[in-house]
Amino acid sequence: MSNIKKKPLILVTNDDGITSPGIKALIEVAADHGEVFIVAPDSPQSGQGHAITITEPIRIKEVSIFNNIKAYECSGTPADCVKIAKNVLLKDRTIDLCVSGINHGSNASINIIYSGTMSAAMEASLEGIPSIGFSLTDFSYKADFSGSKKYADQIIQDILSNSNKNGVPLLNVNIPSLAAGEIKGLRVCRQGRGMWVEKFKENQDPRGETYYWLTGEFISDDIKEDTDLWALKNGYVSVVPSQHDLTNYPGLKDYKFLEG
Amino acid sequence: MSNIKKKPLILVTNDDGITSPGIKALIEVAADHGEVFIVAPDSPQSGQGHAITITEPIRIKEVSIFNNIKAYECSGTPADCVKIAKNVLLKDRTIDLCVSGINHGSNASINIIYSGTMSAAMEASLEGIPSIGFSLTDFSYKADFSGSKKYADQIIQDILSNSNKNGVPLLNVNIPSLAAGEIKGLRVCRQGRGMWVEKFKENQDPRGETYYWLTGEFISDDIKEDTDLWALKNGYVSVVPSQHDLTNYPGLKDYKFLEG
Repeated sequence: MSNIKKKPLILVTNDDGITSPGIKALIEVAADHGEVFIVAPDSPQSGQGHAITITEPIRIKEVSIFNNIKAYECSGTPADCVKIAKNVLLKDRTIDLCVSGINHGSNASINIIYSGTMSAAMEASLEGIPSIGFSLTDFSYKADFSGSKKYADQIIQDILSNSNKNGVPLLNVNIPSLAAGEIKGLRVCRQGRGMWVEKFKENQDPRGETYYWLTGEFISDDIKEDTDLWALKNGYVSVVPSQHDLTNYPGLKDYKFLEG
Repeated sequence: MSNIKKKPLILVTNDDGITSPGIKALIEVAADHGEVFIVAPDSPQSGQGHAITITEPIRIKEVSIFNNIKAYECSGTPADCVKIAKNVLLKDRTIDLCVSGINHGSNASINIIYSGTMSAAMEASLEGIPSIGFSLTDFSYKADFSGSKKYADQIIQDILSNSNKNGVPLLNVNIPSLAAGEIKGLRVCRQGRGMWVEKFKENQDPRGETYYWLTGEFISDDIKEDTDLWALKNGYVSVVPSQHDLTNYPGLKDYKFLEG
């Protein structure tokens, strides 16, 4: 290799599966910034949260669907993909960045908790790898990724140049469903509060057995200017710096009474 | 009914499945504090994180394995069980408390993220239901739940009496694997930092195909006196008041440079 500066090693994964348009868009961006290595689920994993596979084996298979880029499909969850990349496929190398996505659908607000895309990024950051999850607020398979690609390019560049200055980055990036030129810019913001109001669709299967299918509507009373929800609603890319500590710190005092 | 005071409605769920000894122990405790209603997975769901079932239907079936207590087994994840309880089975009633567990195995520290037990509790609290996840630091099916039952009883009592005084409680309770009399007490503490160092066991299936099976060791450099890890190591029950905001607040300033 004649490169003077070593190319960063970038792990790409997602939760929509290795054949989704979103991961293809992200690979195209990542390839401009380093050596790309792909480990992604062999089937869609939406709503997998931070699931890991412990009661059954995981299988991986090398595939050549991205020209000369090394790629494996994996039978596990997004978090499994990161674990197997770090501990098996790339165990002798240092992964400089993990990018996950580009998800078809928003992972803003509380959706980070249900998100396979973000669970991959969270798993990477738990393992000390800087990581970024990208999601486009458009569920369509034919979504326009031009805006996403523009901002993913900029954010990947900035994080690689500033890597670890502020600890191990874990960023939840959501991109509004707008053409690249219509996006107003990027906002670093907090996770807005919100929840899903669920309805289950009840129906009968061909054998006459009842089943329920989850559906619902996202609601929020917290679309303040410092939230990801506000940013997206107002045409900005939202970047929420994230972490894994779920402690309710004021609660340490509030629940002291339990100690009796 | 001749009760003057209305009995609280307590939803019980878990991630080890409806037939596990841990949920039986928790039901026995909960029944002393209110009307118990059970919706639990029909099969073990360990490591499911905050997974929800969106690409396939969910099925529920009434079962009578707990004397006269109303119980349903559900084909979904722990979070699904809570959603279906709230939105289908108990949609016309108010759930006063959701308890999840008693899990066979620790959910202290970062394990909250991988935990089906805690995902059920988190889902309930997102829906405005006070909730508590209980886990015993013993994976054995024949674990001794006497200590867990004693402290679960006390905590359920205290939370029902003080309900919502400090917002909607979401507690991650872990119980050390000791006889009830040997447990030193209860500590309200923060989530200790930690991570899993993974190894995948590689093997060949009967057809000669390679598979990988996740295994690993939990490590922490953060066993300070205010953590759950310290409490458990020193013979205390750990109670971590928890919440769903994953924002890295110092990061809002640190990553401002991304706005360009």
